[in-house]
Amino acid sequence: MMYEPINFHEKLSLFSEHWSPKVIAEMNDYQFKLVKVKGEFVWHDHKETDEVFIVLEGELTIAFRDGHVTLSKGEMYVVPKGVEHKPFAESECQIMLIEPRGVVNTGEKSTELTAENDVWL
Amino acid sequence: MMYEPINFHEKLSLFSEHWSPKVIAEMNDYQFKLVKVKGEFVWHDHKETDEVFIVLEGELTIAFRDGHVTLSKGEMYVVPKGVEHKPFAESECQIMLIEPRGVVNTGEKSTELTAENDVWL
Repeated sequence: MMYEPINFHEKLSLFSEHWSPKVIAEMNDYQFKLVKVKGEFVWHDHKETDEVFIVLEGELTIAFRDGHVTLSKGEMYVVPKGVEHKPFAESECQIMLIEPRGVVNTGEKSTELTAENDVWL
Repeated sequence: MMYEPINFHEKLSLFSEHWSPKVIAEMNDYQFKLVKVKGEFVWHDHKETDEVFIVLEGELTIAFRDGHVTLSKGEMYVVPKGVEHKPFAESECQIMLIEPRGVVNTGEKSTELTAENDVWL
């Protein structure tokens, strides 16, 4: 039997909207989500979990209250739980998020950037 | 304050041995491990957890008892818990594994390919 790999670029070609995570895989109770981002997100945190950012294309800056980290293609960062952060990308950036099922993109805040959760590609 | 991204290629340049996972990050109780692989691994499974393979460079085939999947750069696969598998790479392949802390590379079997666990780069 032939099993199918999950191809990031193929999955990324299936949508174009920004700040709207799409689930592509699950490992136990964790989800792998692709997101296209551009511009500035909102300050938020996730009280219950760390959150992993991996940059697949482009450049992403994650602002913290006391500094920032800038990620290029082939780089990752783990935002610790409870740490306020605000992602930013000057040009469109394509990223993968890894976090437990159920995490909302804006944390506890509901804003116009709050995306529907658990949307699969 | 400047925070540092984790760069996959930079971390991969720090070691050369095959089948010897190196931890580069933790998210909650999960670990991100880089591995260089070449040739054939052993049949094994992980009774308690799914296991994620992401190919960073090269090509990896994962054999199952009833088929296989071949992953190229930019592709991932989730091996479900309890499913026997045997990774194989004709040429050197560089991968990232994601799985809970404590998972041993050969599962419950102890072989000459069993690597020391929880080794950080």
